[in-house]
Amino acid sequence: MKALVYHGEHRIALEDRPKPEIQKPTDVIVKVLKTTICGTDLGIYKGKNPEVEDGRILGHEGVGIIEETGSSVSQFKKGDKVLISCITSCGSCEYCKKQMYAHCKDGGWILGYQIDGVQAEYVRIPHADNSLHRIPDSIDDEVAVLLSDILPTGHEIGVQYGKVKPGDAIAIVGAGPVGMSVLLTSRFYSPSIIIVIDLDENRLKLAKELGATHTVNSGKENPEVAVKHIVGDEGVDVAIEAVGVPATWDICQRIVKPGGHLANVGVHGKKVDFEIQKLWIKNLTITTGLVNTNTTPMLLKAASTNRFDLKKMITHHFTLAELEHAYQVFLNGAEEKALKIIISNA
Amino acid sequence: MKALVYHGEHRIALEDRPKPEIQKPTDVIVKVLKTTICGTDLGIYKGKNPEVEDGRILGHEGVGIIEETGSSVSQFKKGDKVLISCITSCGSCEYCKKQMYAHCKDGGWILGYQIDGVQAEYVRIPHADNSLHRIPDSIDDEVAVLLSDILPTGHEIGVQYGKVKPGDAIAIVGAGPVGMSVLLTSRFYSPSIIIVIDLDENRLKLAKELGATHTVNSGKENPEVAVKHIVGDEGVDVAIEAVGVPATWDICQRIVKPGGHLANVGVHGKKVDFEIQKLWIKNLTITTGLVNTNTTPMLLKAASTNRFDLKKMITHHFTLAELEHAYQVFLNGAEEKALKIIISNA
Repeated sequence: MKALVYHGEHRIALEDRPKPEIQKPTDVIVKVLKTTICGTDLGIYKGKNPEVEDGRILGHEGVGIIEETGSSVSQFKKGDKVLISCITSCGSCEYCKKQMYAHCKDGGWILGYQIDGVQAEYVRIPHADNSLHRIPDSIDDEVAVLLSDILPTGHEIGVQYGKVKPGDAIAIVGAGPVGMSVLLTSRFYSPSIIIVIDLDENRLKLAKELGATHTVNSGKENPEVAVKHIVGDEGVDVAIEAVGVPATWDICQRIVKPGGHLANVGVHGKKVDFEIQKLWIKNLTITTGLVNTNTTPMLLKAASTNRFDLKKMITHHFTLAELEHAYQVFLNGAEEKALKIIISNA
Repeated sequence: MKALVYHGEHRIALEDRPKPEIQKPTDVIVKVLKTTICGTDLGIYKGKNPEVEDGRILGHEGVGIIEETGSSVSQFKKGDKVLISCITSCGSCEYCKKQMYAHCKDGGWILGYQIDGVQAEYVRIPHADNSLHRIPDSIDDEVAVLLSDILPTGHEIGVQYGKVKPGDAIAIVGAGPVGMSVLLTSRFYSPSIIIVIDLDENRLKLAKELGATHTVNSGKENPEVAVKHIVGDEGVDVAIEAVGVPATWDICQRIVKPGGHLANVGVHGKKVDFEIQKLWIKNLTITTGLVNTNTTPMLLKAASTNRFDLKKMITHHFTLAELEHAYQVFLNGAEEKALKIIISNA
């Protein structure tokens, strides 16, 4: 089969690889229909994760058809169309019992990282009963791909951990795919003010279309001043960090009001300065996290009634054969006006 | 009347001052029976709060008898014995309605800071109906003083914000009066393992008497290694910072397990390094805060049945006339084996 293989920093190639086989009774083999490229895949490509082995097939998001099931799989059968969760979970360890699937002792984020991923014709999914979801007929395959990772990430780690509630003023720092997912899912909880902050005018324009009440271009104005001009000097009820660099963390810690929430969603590569000499007194709640995908069933139900404009996040389409080129397009995200790219295997 | 007056960095004096008078209908005047010195008072003495005016009477903890009431005070009358809360609260602003009294728009921590405090023969208490508590007869006056600040601080900002629950493994970093208050009130929620970390053997010994299951002298052994030796490599469910310096923050961020809580109670004067490049993935909840004293009524009920050994925290006794000397003793806390000092006005 064809697969996108990582060979160390800045080296990826579409290659022929053997079709995966069932290794444990809890595995299934999925024939991939649609996949995408995540910012995390770009991180691996750029060498941010030197622990990834040479020869690893990348990708952790996708939709496919079950080709073969292990002997103990009970929830799925050959021919079922499934959403592949970016998180693999055994369902029975200490963390799984708390629905903290991200920290599953025999899973977590392993696809396209510690085991071969979904940017291929076929993929082996361990612990299939807990790591796949049936897709309602009313959800388009391309939209479903957004529910593998970015939508639950925005919802769980941004909106739920940030405890967004009706009437709140919230600020989302970063209007990439995850920031947009925070924006879309925050609307379930009816905040009054949704401020989206980014450097890219195209993304801010889309944020407005997706429901932002205000946008701030942090390249053109001081984001702290701009936010406080909108909501008052005390700041926002919830600040959500959706980039993963010190500058965006810093914006968040400056704009959150006493008793407020700061939900960090971004994947960071460096430590940050925490201004605790000013913030110890503010009764803040700061959260971090990798997505558990425990709300994926809820999001599938919400998406099945077309409650949100997920299609607007899809900016580019490629085939599996074009995947190396697709990486280059996504690497130049802002210039190419790319937000989310769909890869079709057909 | 006699009062302990601040005159700028390292200058305090016991002086004659006019007896305070009712200024607003919501005020009362309290004749002080017992008070104490807080670490925060030492901070002011050392010049940590240059915003404190020359001439300010210090102190925000105490017990007394109501001498005079303003015309609109409804909950208290002359002769009532009362606990003075360290937090003054109007009861009707946005924050008070959320029981976030620390951020009251006409109060918060103002006693002995922005208005004259309780280290005196008499003190004026604004918003008396919301800022005083009746003391059950079964609670000793000296014990009650511990409920002005340190006990609710440990309970609310350490134990409640840290979400300590039955069976948890918790670590308390710092065995000063507030750390000991965390220890005592954590036991309400039945954690299985309570590790107390400090540099002072005397304080660690008292921590054991007060219910610590393990103690770690961080001057003699690496606290991260020691904690993980006790609870396993993943760390504790809850880490509580009760000192307020970068080193103790750092211990906390190294010992908290995935999904765990880090509750910062300490008052910090410097920013800290937040190792978010390691912790973004850990699904942590980090909290900060100034005490709201919203649990003071609960703690008074708990203390009234003598459920905990509060008296063991009281190490020294002085009279109001000896207050300047008492500051010097408390400044040499470790050497003098001082934990909490009681000042009697009689």
